[in-house]
Formats: sequence, C-alpha cells, structure tokens
Amino acid sequence: MYVKFASRMDNIKGSAIRALLKVAEQPDIISFAGGFPAPEFFPIKEMEEVSKKVLREDGYAALQYGATDGLPSLRRHICKLMEPQNLHADIADILVTSGSQQGLDLAGMLFIDKDDVVVTESPSYLGALNAFKAYQPKFAEVEMDEQGMLMDKLEETLEANKGKVKFIYTIPDFQNPTGRTMPIERRKKMVELANKYGIFILEDNPYGSLRFEGDIMPAIKSFDTEGRVIYLGTMSKIFCPGMRLGWIYASNEVVNKFNMLKQGVDLQSNSLSQRECATFFDMYDINAHIARIIETYRKRRDLMINTMKECFPANVSYTHPEGGLFLWVTLPEGIDAAEVFKKALEKKVAFVAGEPFYPNGGNANHFRLNYSNMPEDKIVEGIKALGEVLTEVC
Amino acid sequence: MYVKFASRMDNIKGSAIRALLKVAEQPDIISFAGGFPAPEFFPIKEMEEVSKKVLREDGYAALQYGATDGLPSLRRHICKLMEPQNLHADIADILVTSGSQQGLDLAGMLFIDKDDVVVTESPSYLGALNAFKAYQPKFAEVEMDEQGMLMDKLEETLEANKGKVKFIYTIPDFQNPTGRTMPIERRKKMVELANKYGIFILEDNPYGSLRFEGDIMPAIKSFDTEGRVIYLGTMSKIFCPGMRLGWIYASNEVVNKFNMLKQGVDLQSNSLSQRECATFFDMYDINAHIARIIETYRKRRDLMINTMKECFPANVSYTHPEGGLFLWVTLPEGIDAAEVFKKALEKKVAFVAGEPFYPNGGNANHFRLNYSNMPEDKIVEGIKALGEVLTEVC
Repeated sequence: MYVKFASRMDNIKGSAIRALLKVAEQPDIISFAGGFPAPEFFPIKEMEEVSKKVLREDGYAALQYGATDGLPSLRRHICKLMEPQNLHADIADILVTSGSQQGLDLAGMLFIDKDDVVVTESPSYLGALNAFKAYQPKFAEVEMDEQGMLMDKLEETLEANKGKVKFIYTIPDFQNPTGRTMPIERRKKMVELANKYGIFILEDNPYGSLRFEGDIMPAIKSFDTEGRVIYLGTMSKIFCPGMRLGWIYASNEVVNKFNMLKQGVDLQSNSLSQRECATFFDMYDINAHIARIIETYRKRRDLMINTMKECFPANVSYTHPEGGLFLWVTLPEGIDAAEVFKKALEKKVAFVAGEPFYPNGGNANHFRLNYSNMPEDKIVEGIKALGEVLTEVC
Repeated sequence: MYVKFASRMDNIKGSAIRALLKVAEQPDIISFAGGFPAPEFFPIKEMEEVSKKVLREDGYAALQYGATDGLPSLRRHICKLMEPQNLHADIADILVTSGSQQGLDLAGMLFIDKDDVVVTESPSYLGALNAFKAYQPKFAEVEMDEQGMLMDKLEETLEANKGKVKFIYTIPDFQNPTGRTMPIERRKKMVELANKYGIFILEDNPYGSLRFEGDIMPAIKSFDTEGRVIYLGTMSKIFCPGMRLGWIYASNEVVNKFNMLKQGVDLQSNSLSQRECATFFDMYDINAHIARIIETYRKRRDLMINTMKECFPANVSYTHPEGGLFLWVTLPEGIDAAEVFKKALEKKVAFVAGEPFYPNGGNANHFRLNYSNMPEDKIVEGIKALGEVLTEVC
C-alpha cells in the first residue's frame, strides 16, 4: 500500500533514548541511559493519603474535565516553586502542561514555520530536537565551553541568520546532555541579544532546583525585560514523572496562545494528577523532599566521577556538573561512541551515544551518562565495566 | 513588542466550547453546552480501592516514566472493549493517547501538509477541526442526511479533490454535533472509496458503546481491507475524562509512526492513570458500568426530546439520536443561534451555537444540545426556558 504521510515525516525518527528504554529496563542491565529519577524517592505512602483525600473531598471534579489553563491551586504552588530562581509569577501567566515535553511541542507549534531557524546549544536535548523537527525548522548550533553557550558565537549565529531565527532553545542549568551551567553574565547577555534581534528564548529548566553546591541560579526569565523568555518547568525530576505534569511560564499574550494550542492537542492535563500534585504540596514539605533527592544525587555524582577517575583511560574527558542528572563524556577523536555502546551492552551496561544530541549530526565521539537512577553499588560496577571497554578501545 | 508567530497561528482561535466552560461551570447555569459525562457515574469509591492497590502493588512503576506505547494490561482491556464493534485488535496495534483529542492532533501531524484537503461531515466536531487547523489544511465538507455523510456527495468531493485529500474524518456513531449514525452500507462504501482514492479514514468513536436501542454497530475499521482506517477511542465517556486516556488503533506501520510522534509531543500518557484504569477494569465490571450510564442517558434524551416537543415552536426541528451525548437543533433560515444563545444565557441556560462546527463557516441557524450532564429536573427547567426564548424569536 502506498501511503502519503506529511512531508515532516521524512525527518522524524524515534528518539534514541526511548528506543533504549526497553533494553535499559531489563533488570540485569546497569543503565546510565535514561533520565529517570531515583524511584526510591517517589512518595508512595504519602500518595496513598493524598489520593484518598482528593477522591473524598473533590472526587467529582478530579475525574471530570477541567479548564485548559490548569488547576489554580497547582499553579499557585508552581509560582512558589520558581521563587528561588528569582521568578515572581502570577498564576494567570502559567499554563499546566502534560510534562515539559509538551511545552517543547507547543513552542514548536507556536513559532516554527518550515525552514525557520531554531538556535540551540551544541549538543542539546534530543527530545527537544525531535519535538521541534515535527515543524521542519533548520537548526543553527552554537558552540559551548564549560560554562555553556558562547555568547560571541551566539551573536555571530543570530547575525548570520537575521530574520530567520524564531527562538533560542537553551537549558541553562545542568544542561542535558552536558551537565554544564551558564553563569549570570551570559544569561543577561542572552536576553540582551534576544531583544536586539527581536526573537524569543525558550528556557527549559527541568533540573534548576537540583543544585548540589552553591546557590540556585536566577533563571534567564528573571532578566526578561520584553516578555521574550518562555520558561518551561516540570514535576518530573522533583516529584514523579509518571504523572506527566509540567508548566509554561510566559507573558500573558504568549500564554494565551499556548492555551489555544493546548485545547487542540489534548484539551487539558490530567485533572486527578493535578489535584494530587497540589494536595501533596499542601500536605508535605516539597523543599525537604528536594533536599533529600539532592543529597543522594550528589553522592551518586561523586561516586561516578571518582570511579571514572580510577577506571577511565587518561585520554577520555568528562564534565563535572554542579547539579542535575547527567554528565558528558568525550572520547578521543575518531572513536565512535555507538561502537563503544555495543561493547558496553555486552557487559550489561547502557548509556546514550552522543550523535543524536547534535541537531545536524556528527560528533560521534561523545556519550551521556545518567547518575540519578542507579544505586551506588551499580554505579561502581557499571563504571568499572565501562572503564574496561574504554581501556580496550581508546 | 512585535511578535512573529508561525503562520498557522493566523487561523487558530480558541475552541468555542472551551471558552464556554467557565460560564457553563457556574452553579446557577443550566448547561447543555459541554460534552461532559454525568459525574454521578464516576466510580469515586471504587477509585479509592483501585488507587490503593496500584500504589501498594506497583507504586514505583506507577510514578515512573514508562514506554510510549502504553501499559500492556490497559491495551489488553482496550482490545476487549472494542470487540462488540467487531474489532479484533492485537495490542501491538494500539497506542495509548492522552485522550482521543491527542489522537486527532497526531493524525493532523502525521498526514497534513499545508493546503492538503481533509474531508469532514458538515457539520463536524469542532475540537477536531481546531486540532487539524494547526497543520493548515483546507476542509471539504460533505453534506449529511439523517443517516450521516452522503456517499454520492463524498465520492464527488473525493473526485473533485483528487490527489489532494489525505483523509476523511468521520464520527460514524451518534455524531458530534448531530447525534446521527451511519448505517452499515455507508460504512462499507466509505472503505471502498478510501481504497479507490488511496486515502485514509480517521474514525473517531467516542460514543459507539453508548447505544440506547438496537445493537452496537460494527466499526468502519471492521470493514478495513487495506489498513486504511485509523480508529480513535476514549475512556472519557465510559469511565472518567479527567484521567485523559484514549487510544489509537491502526495498522502496525501507522501505529509505529504515531508512536514516534507521541515521543515528541508528550513522551507517554500518565503512568499512574493508565494503571488505575487497567486495575479498575480488572476489579469491576465495565459493561455493567456502561449499562448504568446508558440507562440514565436514555432517560435524559427522552426527557429532553419530550420537553422539546411540548415547548419548542413547530418551525424548529431536531435530531433523534440513538445513543451518545448530543442532539442538533435547526432553526428557521435566517435566525442566528449565537443571538439565541445570548438571550438563553440571560435565562441561565447555555448551549453551543452551531457555526463553529462548520469548517468553512456559515449555517448559523443551528445549535448543539448535550443531555448527559444535567440532572432530570434541570433538563426540564432548561428546555422550558429555551422554549420561551425560541417562541419569542422564531
């Protein structure tokens, strides 16, 4: 049968991460592949209380359709959550989304006409790249150093693509995949450039509150002077990803546009989960919960890096993230991480090879490691095994 | 600030139904506007048991990320649910979606390039039209009689738009907004035409199992010979809409494409709600539950129509649906239902004026009434009030 799909389908491939999920979920695999939070922090007992309370006190509304913008009480908690990033939002400027992944899709839908340019860090989150690809943009990658996107390179890119760029996509805190964080000066400069070129910034901030040392950074959105920064947040890394709750915080004009699009894509996010999340925040201390997550992830990062220091060959380098879930490994030029992956999988260790994180491909000598999801003994065992593979090939 | 959105935004307006939600939710309004199911059938007590069981037995997985295709046990229940429509699906051909609204969005994304033609019933579900509009199609409307889309008119339309049509969008059972049902001969003919013209059929079936009299109809999908029918289903009308669970059933090739797109738009549907829904289906008899809903909706339809017979002027006509949630009212030519709406709202009665259901506009002399959501006394009171307004203007 000859099937004529939309032309966008020529460029859509499944996510390399999602494809790995089925491999990585096998119990004998030590997986550093996904971006899964540590399940031992899921508040299962508390959720039983929360769920009972929601159903008893508000059951009809919790199971019924609700308004697209999302539950007001949840949006109030979201505003409070963002305060440490120096954001002081009004709930009218928040749209609850079905995970922050939906925020990425809606941003693509709102801004991108075919062949418009999206500017990204090089490398960038492949789930975002896949979401944008449905709207057929071109990607302009901006080089990074250890402190994130280089602002002079960004300005060159904007100048070279004047009139074609719709937005800059950035993950300023503990970037996915590199784990790098952008300093305040660059955040201010990025807003200045967005104003100058009349474009938007899509600030994706899933990990910002998971900082292991030093103070939480002010969001890029906190320096926004013209309503040009769209901030995406999520409950997935500080609460539970299975409930698929995230949010968009933007100027009222832009949030209203997102609301209209969300009506078309899924009407609204889950009424029950929104109530359960808000009630959890009412009943329990989310900051204490986040502090426990941070404590564990810091240990796991340290353990992973210390084991890498012992076991990885000297010509393999890696980032040292101050928070978040990921670090980024660079192999000597010419070594293909996808080949390393095959050998690692024979030793029952999984990670994500780096090439799909580059919107225009190339750069095969990198890979991403996640340290949030595996217990300590598995981290040591997995990194040692990976060290053996790398010693063999590098 | 000058903002350059994507060109699709020129044609995106918020849903007329969603805009009404805030009005219609006020407790003193008698609302025949939304497509809300009767909340008294939400299994709140049962959900407390279900939720406890899921969290205790499968809490970690219920709160964690999961695979994009959806929970296998839920997909098995979905296959069983479709059997009365003469569908015998394999779970590999099911993708769980965030409500069937997401199925509409994904179908637009999979098939529509700008200026492609989508064929619809005239009128059609406005939420579907809004979802498709994000992909900038043209709409070709096909005239209906009391038995749904006219097949000779459909063939004319396909011939006139040869090479440009990607799919026919149809709601064969108790159509939204008209309540009309397509007989078997037309279903077979539609598949024949889809095969002849090499196009797809998007069969949206949210209400099929809510039949008040006679036997459940075989789905259009049951006559599919070339894998050209994509079936959309939902838990919203037989279980709970707040959980945002629906599904796509299509050929494996097409389902795999949808899966790739879903990865980009929201990764996966809610893990917790999927488990709760599957566990509810394990623990309780969904068919008995559906039978209770049918019993009540039949009474409400009868009560509404009988009251209309008493109170509506003779020059106002309306459909007599055999199931589902809606009926469709036709006013004399030249009377604008949007004006009637304003007068009705003064009497605290709401409905949806008909024009937005026509993809190319016009036909202002219609409106849609929902009979599932209001209790009996409110139906009588509201229809009487509406009768007074109509007697005044018609």
